[in-house]
Amino acid sequence: MKILFIGDVVGSPGRKMIQEYLPKLKKKHKPTVTIVNGENAAGGKGITEKIYKGFLEQGAQAITLGNHTWDNKDIFEFINDAPLMARPANYPEETPGNEYIITKVNDLEVGVISLMGRTFMPPNDCPFKKAEALVNKIKKRTPYIFVDFHAEATSEKQAMGWFLDGKVTAVVGTHTHVQTADNRVLPSGTAYISDAGMTGPLDGILGMKREDIINKFLTNLPVRFEVAKGREQLNGILIHVDSKTGLAKAMERIQISEEQPFYE
Amino acid sequence: MKILFIGDVVGSPGRKMIQEYLPKLKKKHKPTVTIVNGENAAGGKGITEKIYKGFLEQGAQAITLGNHTWDNKDIFEFINDAPLMARPANYPEETPGNEYIITKVNDLEVGVISLMGRTFMPPNDCPFKKAEALVNKIKKRTPYIFVDFHAEATSEKQAMGWFLDGKVTAVVGTHTHVQTADNRVLPSGTAYISDAGMTGPLDGILGMKREDIINKFLTNLPVRFEVAKGREQLNGILIHVDSKTGLAKAMERIQISEEQPFYE
Amino acid sequence: MKILFIGDVVGSPGRKMIQEYLPKLKKKHKPTVTIVNGENAAGGKGITEKIYKGFLEQGAQAITLGNHTWDNKDIFEFINDAPLMARPANYPEETPGNEYIITKVNDLEVGVISLMGRTFMPPNDCPFKKAEALVNKIKKRTPYIFVDFHAEATSEKQAMGWFLDGKVTAVVGTHTHVQTADNRVLPSGTAYISDAGMTGPLDGILGMKREDIINKFLTNLPVRFEVAKGREQLNGILIHVDSKTGLAKAMERIQISEEQPFYE
Amino acid sequence: MKILFIGDVVGSPGRKMIQEYLPKLKKKHKPTVTIVNGENAAGGKGITEKIYKGFLEQGAQAITLGNHTWDNKDIFEFINDAPLMARPANYPEETPGNEYIITKVNDLEVGVISLMGRTFMPPNDCPFKKAEALVNKIKKRTPYIFVDFHAEATSEKQAMGWFLDGKVTAVVGTHTHVQTADNRVLPSGTAYISDAGMTGPLDGILGMKREDIINKFLTNLPVRFEVAKGREQLNGILIHVDSKTGLAKAMERIQISEEQPFYE
Ligand SMILES: [Fe+2]
Ligand SMILES: [Fe+2]
Ligand SMILES: [Fe+2]
Ligand SMILES: [Fe+2]
Ligand SMILES: [Fe+2]
Ligand SMILES: [Fe+2]
Ligand SMILES: [Fe+2]
Ligand SMILES: [Fe+2]
Repeated sequence: MKILFIGDVVGSPGRKMIQEYLPKLKKKHKPTVTIVNGENAAGGKGITEKIYKGFLEQGAQAITLGNHTWDNKDIFEFINDAPLMARPANYPEETPGNEYIITKVNDLEVGVISLMGRTFMPPNDCPFKKAEALVNKIKKRTPYIFVDFHAEATSEKQAMGWFLDGKVTAVVGTHTHVQTADNRVLPSGTAYISDAGMTGPLDGILGMKREDIINKFLTNLPVRFEVAKGREQLNGILIHVDSKTGLAKAMERIQISEEQPFYE
Repeated sequence: MKILFIGDVVGSPGRKMIQEYLPKLKKKHKPTVTIVNGENAAGGKGITEKIYKGFLEQGAQAITLGNHTWDNKDIFEFINDAPLMARPANYPEETPGNEYIITKVNDLEVGVISLMGRTFMPPNDCPFKKAEALVNKIKKRTPYIFVDFHAEATSEKQAMGWFLDGKVTAVVGTHTHVQTADNRVLPSGTAYISDAGMTGPLDGILGMKREDIINKFLTNLPVRFEVAKGREQLNGILIHVDSKTGLAKAMERIQISEEQPFYE
Repeated sequence: MKILFIGDVVGSPGRKMIQEYLPKLKKKHKPTVTIVNGENAAGGKGITEKIYKGFLEQGAQAITLGNHTWDNKDIFEFINDAPLMARPANYPEETPGNEYIITKVNDLEVGVISLMGRTFMPPNDCPFKKAEALVNKIKKRTPYIFVDFHAEATSEKQAMGWFLDGKVTAVVGTHTHVQTADNRVLPSGTAYISDAGMTGPLDGILGMKREDIINKFLTNLPVRFEVAKGREQLNGILIHVDSKTGLAKAMERIQISEEQPFYE
Repeated sequence: MKILFIGDVVGSPGRKMIQEYLPKLKKKHKPTVTIVNGENAAGGKGITEKIYKGFLEQGAQAITLGNHTWDNKDIFEFINDAPLMARPANYPEETPGNEYIITKVNDLEVGVISLMGRTFMPPNDCPFKKAEALVNKIKKRTPYIFVDFHAEATSEKQAMGWFLDGKVTAVVGTHTHVQTADNRVLPSGTAYISDAGMTGPLDGILGMKREDIINKFLTNLPVRFEVAKGREQLNGILIHVDSKTGLAKAMERIQISEEQPFYE
């Protein structure tokens, strides 16, 4: 059994990469389940219903989110009618959307949890306790559990990996938009990577126009960020899962761009 | 011409890796210059004169630092007598230590700059302006310039890479203790990676004992951190430099641990 | 009915002021209940059992705390045997100490809640929800409820005041160590002030030695802070309460120092 | 000689208070110079040319600003043609606007400096060093120097007060929108207050609609803030200055609202 995950899709360049390469990646790797982080899919800010449905049509069976979940107001119109989209679970309880989802492919069920860190981020509920509670709940139904931990600090991400080691299939970091090279299977069987990286512009800064971001750092003045143009990249990971235990056997990193072409 | 850089050395496990593998890496890659980030070399906090001199004896020609520079009080005793150690240049002007260094190997001179980010970090002087000023100064003497950008946010790190693209040999991120997989040569010839990773415990959290860090996140109570025990890792990068221009031709990532053994 | 509250007592200068003026203030104002914030009572960092008991002997019937609660390790030895001390309630549930206390004076019971803000502070549980839950619980027993909201941002403090307006007797801010001049009774009857101010050195910076703090800002280097010496001040507030409703009729500010002498 | 200062004017309720009470305050106190902080004058965000000119017509001779300076894009159109408006001086050097101003009333010149803190705020240049440099420059022309220190943390504000004690007429804090009760003349003659407070809605949260701010704290979701309606307040201070030395003799707090009516 395999799980394919694609990191933060940024704007139309990111969606273009999904459209072009998701079918190819699925054909090549034959993942049982495909999950996409869509928090930046709509112009870098949030996600719309149309994009959500597009991802599902293009082959995803689950969508995760992050701190940008709420940036496009469209979200409030459809989040409660999006059964395959998990919002960060540790927002306050009454927050709209799914605290977790269980996506079904043939007879196999995979629990998908989206969580947000709190270091250098908004003060949501404790992601560790929320993770523990949800994992205990989902465990009763399926041993396959995928956790997207959307966080800034590597300390908090690694802590989550070790905290859930042996309890879930994978803890995959997102949010920094840079893929890390620390993919491994932890001693008790949980696949871990600090960040899966982003999917969108290759030559921007986190996917946004370089000039704007550099100007922001130089001037401290307000700057309106735009998705960068030009070449694209796709970043993600592939987890090889032990079908019996739900634990991971291996985690591979995926990078596609002009500089690292896709091979069938 | 080649430059070898080893990321944040953490405590005695990190120093052990330096002692064991620095000679082997030098024998294998024959770098012209070897640079080590030593901000966590003394028990995870700062660096001592003895450790500084040890690194030089073991084959380094330059030491860079970071936010932990001042954690071991020994630093104030020897920082002004450490001609091959660069403190973060954007601390206030009157800060002790070298704003930059020029290390000489045979007839070749390499400028080495250590800088700190400001996002989620102390409010030092603007690292972009300081970088520009120092690069202009060093350029008059040598085209080989290595920048260690010690920063938390990937946005600030990428911004620095693009800001200096074509002006320096390499911009190498440090501080997150996790090696990133985004090593590349930017279009105008500067080698860039968001983080080189750390050198020290393999199974800790950023090199520190896991239980302590997890407890901190669970309780918000004060916790005293200790360097983790057990298996070790080394992370670094190797830059292939065009001897004429001082620009980069390629940047390779280096990872050594039980799980990724060193080959001669 | 009246409630007297003394803001953050800092080190021995603060304790000296309590010893000298608490009896005088009690004699003058005849408060039904006296509450002291003791988070900085032990050398500026935390509180010891001896200090806790001393405050009670000197006339306090309840002690509140803040972010410095845990700085003196002595706290873990006695916090569970300190029935008149309320730790910040929105630390994680399993945190030692009382989530709230009910202090009894003659036949009258007063609920005392200590809460911490999250803006620019550690990511504890939501103080607004925790406040609501505790207020609902205490209301069943007594209409007199005093809330010490230990927070940095005036926005969060005012929000708590308005959030609890009409539900508690008073919301009194602490933590900034500077008394504010916005004491008032909100429209539904809750007394509010953004900060009660501190009790300790008059000529320090938040009670600490000036040189150290100024140096910190000038250098960004690590600095060990010490309680300042010299003249002292006491800051607090007095709430006049409607005995029937438990709501406030008025809130007076109290300041005592060489520059604003105490009058019997 | 006297200096009148009015704290952060928020939106039309704040401007209304200026229009109504600035003439009355001037008539009553006869200040030599009147200074207004206008960073929130345009709908809570920034200032327009029309508002700037209005303040001057209504009796101000200098305008200070803060972190909201740039929120209304109109600022970039007129900031270089506004000789009586000081932007925060510690923004990067090339920032448009005046680093400081010298306002002239009859034959008397008063230097006015606006500075921003860095604790919990954007990483601008060091406000202490910038203050020192500007004070040294202005001192050559006039002994009357007013510093508006727009900062969040009371530690940084008090540090600035003591740092400049004896070198300027007054250090007056702004930004928290809550007037503090720590107005005093420091031992070497500089008038100090941590915050002058705001001028605008009386029953909002920092001048904004209460429901929005409370919702923000409860939900962590994006919220659009609006200036509150209803009753108004004015907060400011009056400094009595020794004409010979330029040092302060006393600092009075001013508060006007329905609850604290103005008396002629
Ligand atoms: Fe993202
Ligand atoms: Fe994100
Ligand atoms: Fe480090
Ligand atoms: Fe660091
Ligand atoms: Fe305190
Ligand atoms: Fe505090
Ligand atoms: Fe303001
Ligand atoms: Fe402000």
